[in-house]
Amino acid sequence: MANAFPANSVGLVTPEVFHFDTPLTLANGRQLSGYELVVETYGTLNTAKTNAVLVCHALSGHHHAAGYHTLDDRKPGWWDHYIGPGKPIDTDRFFVVSLNNLGGCHGSTGPQSINPETGEPWGGDFPTLRVRDWVATQYRLMERLGISQWAAVVGGSLGGMQAMRWSLEHPNCLRHCVVIASAMKLSAQNIAFNETARQAIFSDPDFVDGHYLKKGSQPMRGLSVARMIGHITYLSDDGMGKKFGRELRSGSFEQGSEEPVEFQIETYLRYQGNSFSKTFDANTYVLMTRALDYFDLAREYNHDPVSAFHHAGCKFLVISFTSDWRFSPERSREIVNALTRAEKDVVYAEIESPYGHDAFLVPNQPRYEALFRSYMQGITI
Amino acid sequence: MANAFPANSVGLVTPEVFHFDTPLTLANGRQLSGYELVVETYGTLNTAKTNAVLVCHALSGHHHAAGYHTLDDRKPGWWDHYIGPGKPIDTDRFFVVSLNNLGGCHGSTGPQSINPETGEPWGGDFPTLRVRDWVATQYRLMERLGISQWAAVVGGSLGGMQAMRWSLEHPNCLRHCVVIASAMKLSAQNIAFNETARQAIFSDPDFVDGHYLKKGSQPMRGLSVARMIGHITYLSDDGMGKKFGRELRSGSFEQGSEEPVEFQIETYLRYQGNSFSKTFDANTYVLMTRALDYFDLAREYNHDPVSAFHHAGCKFLVISFTSDWRFSPERSREIVNALTRAEKDVVYAEIESPYGHDAFLVPNQPRYEALFRSYMQGITI
Repeated sequence: MANAFPANSVGLVTPEVFHFDTPLTLANGRQLSGYELVVETYGTLNTAKTNAVLVCHALSGHHHAAGYHTLDDRKPGWWDHYIGPGKPIDTDRFFVVSLNNLGGCHGSTGPQSINPETGEPWGGDFPTLRVRDWVATQYRLMERLGISQWAAVVGGSLGGMQAMRWSLEHPNCLRHCVVIASAMKLSAQNIAFNETARQAIFSDPDFVDGHYLKKGSQPMRGLSVARMIGHITYLSDDGMGKKFGRELRSGSFEQGSEEPVEFQIETYLRYQGNSFSKTFDANTYVLMTRALDYFDLAREYNHDPVSAFHHAGCKFLVISFTSDWRFSPERSREIVNALTRAEKDVVYAEIESPYGHDAFLVPNQPRYEALFRSYMQGITI
Repeated sequence: MANAFPANSVGLVTPEVFHFDTPLTLANGRQLSGYELVVETYGTLNTAKTNAVLVCHALSGHHHAAGYHTLDDRKPGWWDHYIGPGKPIDTDRFFVVSLNNLGGCHGSTGPQSINPETGEPWGGDFPTLRVRDWVATQYRLMERLGISQWAAVVGGSLGGMQAMRWSLEHPNCLRHCVVIASAMKLSAQNIAFNETARQAIFSDPDFVDGHYLKKGSQPMRGLSVARMIGHITYLSDDGMGKKFGRELRSGSFEQGSEEPVEFQIETYLRYQGNSFSKTFDANTYVLMTRALDYFDLAREYNHDPVSAFHHAGCKFLVISFTSDWRFSPERSREIVNALTRAEKDVVYAEIESPYGHDAFLVPNQPRYEALFRSYMQGITI
């Protein structure tokens, strides 16, 4: 069978590597002499180049947002439910650009790459990045693609932070900004969870201060615990309860029964942690969580989000999910309130959902899908 | 200066060790040939022995609930704000008994004790315990003290589970049951947090499968991360935000500034984790979290809490705190609803508090204190 992909899939996609040789000065003052970005695109750029949509990924995301890498690939890209022909980000209309961010571990220059100054992997010496650094590299990518303005910049969670930063840094370079399950800055609790995850990584002896690649080790136990912490907080209490309850995987509470008793949720979480630790890079996890923590949209605007958003020139769609306690609807309402006071055009929806923070990735949520589709359809190209 | 303790303190207290030589068969079928419990008492047992109150501790608690161990001791017991002359658990009226539970690491028999069969520390071989095992040992302690009925059994969190279990197992042995910030069973999310904490401990190479004492090591990094996870979930998002916000401890976000940027909340959490890991035993932490996970009040009552509570003979006070998301008011309302349907006498209060699950320990909460005091004052002795 030549092609068994679903009809509304973008089908087979091939990532492309873009080299950038112009040095980049980062927000923290350090400089990269050059870097590579891995990019996927879906759909066709129109002649006027007015139909390009940039998709920004979240903490553990990458360039592979839609479609399949091989004919027998069973698992499509991470946002395949929302990108494709007839889907909310409709590839019959839009030319979609998705990249692995700088500092990532899926092919773009990051801690696993070779530091040209030492000839060894960067590891823990890779510079700390800020959301604005990603926007800077995405801007260069936009230029390289010959695009002068995005129809929309779209992102969930950390991706939403990139979208908002675009609206402030390059107000003329996007017409729409779609911010899903995001926040203008993290709360202390969010930073606390991220720091605990980092400590789980740092305290793994195989982390070797970030230089595990040189030593031939991998801090898989630490990264696994870090992912478990994250995973719990991306789901909702209710959702987890409905999915797993107190169901046992093994053992019994009968007197004298064999130990240990094991709940389904424990098995599930450990599996998630273990799988993640085999495919993700610990230094990238540290780098991405730091970028999340450091983001503060209004920091350079006298801590006033209204003056920050005065700089924006685009329209906004903001979406939150009722059971998302990590990026709660309250955080999205703060964005919407600031936008409104800055007299920007904003559509806001709070979607009833049991899926917690993960909701922005989860399919079969009719209201979310309908709203997202309808907004994207309204974008003139 | 002979004694500088506050006037409403129980003052200097000395823990006492009780030996029990009658073998104890545990809920899981294993047997302990004997064990020791470390106990503190405050106030005086009256002649009729009707004024005894049992205080049950939570996950990381111990026998030292009130007063001071030495004249220059700066830090009183963990519930000193609520136990003492004129305090809610008024030692002018009550004889208060507080113990370190079996399996603990503050002097009672537990994983750090010597296994008489091997002559070495139990370590990871110490039996898994259930809340009912603690109630069984507390019952023997009651007998030893010559008490036939508690005026009240009182506990917060895991302590509340012990209090409820008392009401079912020994209905004639308590007149009042005070259940604070507790639940009839943990949700999947709660189990998930506990399992992640355990994995942090297990994945520390110094844990050596629970036999670190024999090897002369201590899984301090794992225990520290475990405590950080717990600590975040005992506080509320709002409370953490008000206390720490996004204040920096060091570093700056100015371009070109020295790294790393460090938030106050990160320093605080790491400090909490490190301190805890120096004073607590990792095997006990695993054992206590498992007891929390395994507790299910109505399991042996056909999963019907109403039939369970039909067995109770005492009156109940149930208290929850609005910002407690780990043992939310909803969990307490479930207790109250079951008690009401079982036609038991119950007073319930949902206390407005920003302190999350920790609220049951935190002083200066007038409504909590007034209600707690008033209920305890109403107990006939």
